[in-house]
Amino acid sequence: MHTTNLTLLTIVGEAILKDRLLAELERAGARGHTLTECEGAGSRHRRVSETLGANIKLETIVSSVVADRLLATLANDYFPKFAVIAYLSPVAVVRGEKYI
Amino acid sequence: MHTTNLTLLTIVGEAILKDRLLAELERAGARGHTLTECEGAGSRHRRVSETLGANIKLETIVSSVVADRLLATLANDYFPKFAVIAYLSPVAVVRGEKYI
Amino acid sequence: MHTTNLTLLTIVGEAILKDRLLAELERAGARGHTLTECEGAGSRHRRVSETLGANIKLETIVSSVVADRLLATLANDYFPKFAVIAYLSPVAVVRGEKYI
Repeated sequence: MHTTNLTLLTIVGEAILKDRLLAELERAGARGHTLTECEGAGSRHRRVSETLGANIKLETIVSSVVADRLLATLANDYFPKFAVIAYLSPVAVVRGEKYI
Repeated sequence: MHTTNLTLLTIVGEAILKDRLLAELERAGARGHTLTECEGAGSRHRRVSETLGANIKLETIVSSVVADRLLATLANDYFPKFAVIAYLSPVAVVRGEKYI
Repeated sequence: MHTTNLTLLTIVGEAILKDRLLAELERAGARGHTLTECEGAGSRHRRVSETLGANIKLETIVSSVVADRLLATLANDYFPKFAVIAYLSPVAVVRGEKYI
């Protein structure tokens, strides 16, 4: 089966950021996303019960160019103010041309 | 810790496909799965509120043979009709012999 | 964008293990985690409706040292008694120094 090597960008942050983050994805050129509700604790490892609200996990399959654009936006506009984490994973995608 | 290099196949699609997709996994030889409810927007980036229903994310750790078998089934029977995405990620699994 | 290569450890197990697993993460040196509710079926591929309860997926970004420590704990104290799966994925993390 033919697959295309692309990047899965995962962003985890407070649920209140949902609309803003989805708008960033679209602005950066991402063609779709998956959103999952989750709980989290940050780098000080507060207990889950002490977190201030629900988190969301946004996943989007993008080219490395779009991934870099999104990471730059997160670094400039989100990391200084919000508890957001972001990471890239290599994925092999079927019908990869739909994502770039 | 000894680990085995295997493939994590992730399938995201409409929740209504749940039973059919689980049957495909079993038929193809997958030994287990994890199912998570999620929301999604596809390659035309419709807003989440415009999607027709909940999505599910199915994850299964398989050999490359089983992964190829499942991708072929998805390509033939699902991609032409349904909004389904599928991608492969490399994973190192503890007790990997249970998955093949 | 500068990223750091780290390990994403994913643990899936019964929801009843939540507090114990979170304590193991903290004890091993993990700096945070994401927790998602999910369903699963194990290597005998029981149907989802036959599973005994909800599952959780715990994800934590760690160094390879912390990943090995956690896998050893899981192998010794959990795998013999519980339906737990664990796997490692390579990830490139922004602000990776927060995770080690």
